[in-house]
Amino acid sequence: MRVSDLVAATGLSRPTADAVADDLIRLGWVTALDDEPGGAPKRGRPARRLAFRADAGYVLGMDIGEHKVRVAVADLRGTVAAEDVRVFEAALGGRERLAVCRRAIGGVLKAAGLRRTQLLATCVGCTGGMDADTGRVLFSGAFPDLSGVNLRTEFERSVPRPVLVENDCNLAVIAERWRGVAREVDDVICVLATERMGAGIVVAGQLVRGHAGAAGEMPFLGAYETHHGAEGIAELVRTRAAAVLTNGRAPRGADVRAWVATPQALAAGDPQGVDAEAVFRAAQAGDPLAAEIVEEALQGAGRAIVTMALVLNPELVVIGGGVANAGAVVTEPLRRLLEQMVRLPPRLEASPLAEHGVVYGAIRHALDDVERRALDRLHDPA
Amino acid sequence: MRVSDLVAATGLSRPTADAVADDLIRLGWVTALDDEPGGAPKRGRPARRLAFRADAGYVLGMDIGEHKVRVAVADLRGTVAAEDVRVFEAALGGRERLAVCRRAIGGVLKAAGLRRTQLLATCVGCTGGMDADTGRVLFSGAFPDLSGVNLRTEFERSVPRPVLVENDCNLAVIAERWRGVAREVDDVICVLATERMGAGIVVAGQLVRGHAGAAGEMPFLGAYETHHGAEGIAELVRTRAAAVLTNGRAPRGADVRAWVATPQALAAGDPQGVDAEAVFRAAQAGDPLAAEIVEEALQGAGRAIVTMALVLNPELVVIGGGVANAGAVVTEPLRRLLEQMVRLPPRLEASPLAEHGVVYGAIRHALDDVERRALDRLHDPA
Repeated sequence: MRVSDLVAATGLSRPTADAVADDLIRLGWVTALDDEPGGAPKRGRPARRLAFRADAGYVLGMDIGEHKVRVAVADLRGTVAAEDVRVFEAALGGRERLAVCRRAIGGVLKAAGLRRTQLLATCVGCTGGMDADTGRVLFSGAFPDLSGVNLRTEFERSVPRPVLVENDCNLAVIAERWRGVAREVDDVICVLATERMGAGIVVAGQLVRGHAGAAGEMPFLGAYETHHGAEGIAELVRTRAAAVLTNGRAPRGADVRAWVATPQALAAGDPQGVDAEAVFRAAQAGDPLAAEIVEEALQGAGRAIVTMALVLNPELVVIGGGVANAGAVVTEPLRRLLEQMVRLPPRLEASPLAEHGVVYGAIRHALDDVERRALDRLHDPA
Repeated sequence: MRVSDLVAATGLSRPTADAVADDLIRLGWVTALDDEPGGAPKRGRPARRLAFRADAGYVLGMDIGEHKVRVAVADLRGTVAAEDVRVFEAALGGRERLAVCRRAIGGVLKAAGLRRTQLLATCVGCTGGMDADTGRVLFSGAFPDLSGVNLRTEFERSVPRPVLVENDCNLAVIAERWRGVAREVDDVICVLATERMGAGIVVAGQLVRGHAGAAGEMPFLGAYETHHGAEGIAELVRTRAAAVLTNGRAPRGADVRAWVATPQALAAGDPQGVDAEAVFRAAQAGDPLAAEIVEEALQGAGRAIVTMALVLNPELVVIGGGVANAGAVVTEPLRRLLEQMVRLPPRLEASPLAEHGVVYGAIRHALDDVERRALDRLHDPA
């Protein structure tokens, strides 16, 4: 881009555009290219060509769930350079989980070939209630024994400041508005059926955090069921599929062998032998009994979504997290329920970002912070 | 107030304050008083004393419910000059209900001794989904046979423009922030348990209308119950109290005679013979069985409130409408439920405005419109 293009695109005067270009070059965000080969010399200041340096800095996004942590680094355009996922062993306490998260940071930086000092901002998303102002965890299934832990302080020991802390569902809805299905939508709910059910809520273009940062956290929503997150849905799918196996009925069109990981599990009728994802896949492939089981298991989540649609009257509901990969098997029953129960039903879509939504939202949130600070520096060059 | 006081209060210059005072006098909102008796003559422009003329104009607020309409007129300070309530007979169609509303307008103006031309704005609140932009009813139990009726156009035939149309719950929460229990609160839900359950929602100081104006309208919320508005609560109270009467048990401390309108009703055990408000009063007076019945009847509404508290994490929930008059009998069980079910429970208060909330909110909304237009006229005196 030439400075004259900048003048045309921004409406700035030529001297201002030149000064801003100098500032951006000083910040390292923009690089001045050599003159065009063969370009004729002109009077006045030379027509500098500028290029945005997306690799002038990086941001790190983290998604801490109850069972695993996902980390990604991205350049200033938001292009992901590397991602790292680590599972928490069940017995781990909060301190040990934090150590796993720190190792994931080391892993993702190594995979991307980056040094910690290249990070301009980090955003930590975590399941549960988060105080975004202080970085403190209000409550979280990921850190049941670390009530009040300050994730900002914890991670400032591992990465350069700033470290932003945000609820995972809030980041998921930010991601949907950035590069998901909610790009032009100002009233949207992103439901994250991970371990427990939560929702990121945007009303009139503004994120709703709630008075104490706990908006959208619904351990008991619907008919006060605890099992309507993905884990709960998978558990219900397993239990009901196992009951079919035990009954030994041969349902039309249902290939129950496809639902289990091993032939032994089929014989045993043990719920743990049933592979919930395999039942989702069978439902997608047209197995009517599998579809019935999935639909039944979605009722709890469906009631929670109906409730939110009644309370907030959004334009769009996005199903985020890994469940989104199941596609129409999940969206069709939920759409039917919304049509039945809500007078002005919202659209409902599965997230194309699926299990990457939270970490992408963390990247966007960190980039927003970097851009805001960079503009502050431009305005106040002291 | 002297113009010099205006200068001190606003930080305007003396010439600007004088010009604004002249504008306000021209609009009729301010009157210039005679010089103070005995005041010594001063050099320069005389020290005019100004008084706000609250009676320079009036606004009309209306609250259209399923069973009745309430209308009030107020002056520019919001002081109510008169109120009028009319009950819809059960068999009335939508057109006939509109005629009742128009008669209520005539009635309240007559009671206040005002002419229609003195109205500077009117705000019509109505139960159900309202399109505030167009004035059209999206759906409403008050006008089941008039889907799509435009209340703005309808009432512009009776009163001077502008006629604003708004959902009743939205007006109730506006009233609580104006002169109720939510004066300094930016995250608040006002639950209106009138005929059906609805909620006015304010998030970060902004009213949440929803994508199609239907936010907070919850015909099915909670465990999909339809009976959790005041009507539903009263019905449940009646049914359960009648069951006690029929059983003939003599509960300790319970004076079942106090629950009924007539001795015949006591003998018959007929739910219609039970006076729901009398049961509320008995509960307030310490009748333990009456309190138990009220608490049981509140469970449906309580679940809906728990759900909204989880979804929105407000600072305060206000119980509005006539149910608010029951006080602690209603608030105590609901507070207990919130403490049990919500990790960061909001405060919960009964509205001091009770059944007047919606109409007060309509007055405030109309006054806001008048003030906005007056400022526009001041800025653009063409």
